Amino acid sequence: MRCSVIAVGTELLLGQIVDTNSSWIGERLAANGIDSHVQFKVGDNHRRIVALLRSALDEADAVIMCGGLGPTHDDLTREAIAEVMGVELEMNDAVADVIREIFSSRGRRMADNNLRQAMVPRGATIIPQTRGTAPGLICPVGLGGSNGDKVVYAVPGVPHEMYDMMERAVLPDLRRRMGDVSVIASKVVRTWGESESGLNERLAPLIEQLEREGNPTLAFLASGWEGIKVRLTAKGADVVEAQAIIERWLPEVHRHAGEFVFGYDADTMESVVLDLLEARGWSFGLAESVTGGLVAGRITAVPGASRTFKGSIVSYASEVKFDVLSVPRGPVVSAESAIAMADGARRVLGADVGLSLTGVAGPAEQDGQPVGTLWVGLALPNHETTATLLRMPGTRDQMRQMSVISALDLLRRRLV
Amino acid sequence: MRCSVIAVGTELLLGQIVDTNSSWIGERLAANGIDSHVQFKVGDNHRRIVALLRSALDEADAVIMCGGLGPTHDDLTREAIAEVMGVELEMNDAVADVIREIFSSRGRRMADNNLRQAMVPRGATIIPQTRGTAPGLICPVGLGGSNGDKVVYAVPGVPHEMYDMMERAVLPDLRRRMGDVSVIASKVVRTWGESESGLNERLAPLIEQLEREGNPTLAFLASGWEGIKVRLTAKGADVVEAQAIIERWLPEVHRHAGEFVFGYDADTMESVVLDLLEARGWSFGLAESVTGGLVAGRITAVPGASRTFKGSIVSYASEVKFDVLSVPRGPVVSAESAIAMADGARRVLGADVGLSLTGVAGPAEQDGQPVGTLWVGLALPNHETTATLLRMPGTRDQMRQMSVISALDLLRRRLV
Repeated sequence: MRCSVIAVGTELLLGQIVDTNSSWIGERLAANGIDSHVQFKVGDNHRRIVALLRSALDEADAVIMCGGLGPTHDDLTREAIAEVMGVELEMNDAVADVIREIFSSRGRRMADNNLRQAMVPRGATIIPQTRGTAPGLICPVGLGGSNGDKVVYAVPGVPHEMYDMMERAVLPDLRRRMGDVSVIASKVVRTWGESESGLNERLAPLIEQLEREGNPTLAFLASGWEGIKVRLTAKGADVVEAQAIIERWLPEVHRHAGEFVFGYDADTMESVVLDLLEARGWSFGLAESVTGGLVAGRITAVPGASRTFKGSIVSYASEVKFDVLSVPRGPVVSAESAIAMADGARRVLGADVGLSLTGVAGPAEQDGQPVGTLWVGLALPNHETTATLLRMPGTRDQMRQMSVISALDLLRRRLV
Repeated sequence: MRCSVIAVGTELLLGQIVDTNSSWIGERLAANGIDSHVQFKVGDNHRRIVALLRSALDEADAVIMCGGLGPTHDDLTREAIAEVMGVELEMNDAVADVIREIFSSRGRRMADNNLRQAMVPRGATIIPQTRGTAPGLICPVGLGGSNGDKVVYAVPGVPHEMYDMMERAVLPDLRRRMGDVSVIASKVVRTWGESESGLNERLAPLIEQLEREGNPTLAFLASGWEGIKVRLTAKGADVVEAQAIIERWLPEVHRHAGEFVFGYDADTMESVVLDLLEARGWSFGLAESVTGGLVAGRITAVPGASRTFKGSIVSYASEVKFDVLSVPRGPVVSAESAIAMADGARRVLGADVGLSLTGVAGPAEQDGQPVGTLWVGLALPNHETTATLLRMPGTRDQMRQMSVISALDLLRRRLV
């Protein structure tokens, strides 16, 4: 079963609204074992919508149209579907009654154009509206004479109305039509410290083997400052089988990607570091200069961070390093400074572990140190405090973001 | 000139990444007077990409392909374009040299597959890479024998690489092809604190007037945590004329949107606040709890922040508030705590101005205070320190991000 999505709305094409609906639908289709074919965004233009729907139906078994079901003259989804079905729109009295009832129950006058939402292509099935005024539609489309072997769904563009109709009606209907009950499971392996091409080379033997077998599939998802994700996707008769296939191949990914793997699925570098610290019962404090609070901001994005994280001394000005963290006066981008900052973070914040970052984000060099210089200080219980020099690439913003995850990865590697 | 966009990547179809690139491109096309036709998302499948590109070229004069230019086996954009152009891919030695140089300058080993990125369809023009390893492409496509009357652009999927190539090469090339000799100038008015519909109502008389005149045009760009942007776009015979039209209408926008306007174009709330502080010669320090370093992280993203910004005490644990900032023991989400934190930030960091944030981001309430509670403390020279209660909407992440800009806006309004 191959399914395409058409998101309708000029505001989407103009970038005034980001189309997150299609992404959500794509995720739900995958979870239900339905292949996503193509996703489209089109403006409020009858001829274009009709042409796009026809072309989408050439390739896909089902098309979900999202948006364009409202009451105004630029809501054109109903008309477009009727034209492609080759049928008339008819007033559905039951739907009209529900719309009138919605308005009267809210004590609001109903403008006549709201009854446009009760116009239904002949032969379509209604998905009753439970949240908004517009019902959804299930429309059999007989292309080339074989009536009803493809299907077009129409759901509102308002996200919570769309989610409801997808879960309640569209996904169950798609699965009934599929007959095939195969289910997709996937697992994302999170890595840091190796480039996409480098990982590709490390995993090459596995990739070749999987391409021969066809199940599971392996894909790389670059996510910039978050490292490279490696995704395994398996098909199975049910969730248990699909997940078993994943579990069978996961150790192979781990064997090839090794030390670069820091977590799975929803894990982030910061959540992994917090878990490792919590497992040892160690509290955690920061002293940040070059990252200016970004490490603390990411750590505190994790719910429950307060069980482990004490805080951060963002010592952007040198005097704050000297006065609050007792850094010795002198060059502040240095091993000595990083070590004193990490020790200072432990002491001032009352933490077991202190991590510090001092460096040069640019635009100009500092104390003779080039842009991209990063010193990371790490103070652990019963260990001598260390300083590590790293070179970060990129612009000011990139340098800072890369510094965040690089410093946390350094701490992670010391903890595992 | 009609332009379509094809975003390439299975991760987009599966909803693992939301396609914000197409939205950004759609916005830039509109600002340059180019019609958006259809936007597509397609997976990493050679046959489907080729079919989609062909069908997109049937209807549009230009197609921008975004993504699929990386070094791995599932980066297929180059091959797809070459097939549609009906030409071979050739190794471009100059591009290969740049890629080798990028790796050696970072002191990293280059995996051989990176040279895939130097493969260029014969007849294509290179958009030199300045940030990533993959160059962009400008590919004339002769459909129906009339060589070169349509064009396919390829740009990377990494947003900052894509933005750069769009502005530097793709948009100027599109405008040349359009034969449009007029020049576009635009100005973005940044606002905070009013909804899009509220701004629409305030600006309604101006919008009506501009719709009658046709030049400049006015558009709203919602940008979530960054407020609502109002964009004026003017056409003129040259830059001077286009900018003069903008300057003539700008005071009208300001007159209607008034206090909600905080800046223009590349201004951010944090850059505006830093400028206001610097103009008074005041240094600035923070005490953050609920935002956990996010305010400091945003402030230090501004180059030159060090002229004004001393640092932040990220007092996530209550003991850090008590011990470092001398907050009186008791409920830490309170006016008293916000005031003591702001005063403590001034004192500990040696700053003229202290700003503090304490609140509840969730998932659970705290000390009987509901999720969304935000107390902002503000200590200014020669003023009594104040605390202001704000209610933030949304999830944990939204609440924290909205808190950052809301607190800075509060400071901004006190400074102007």
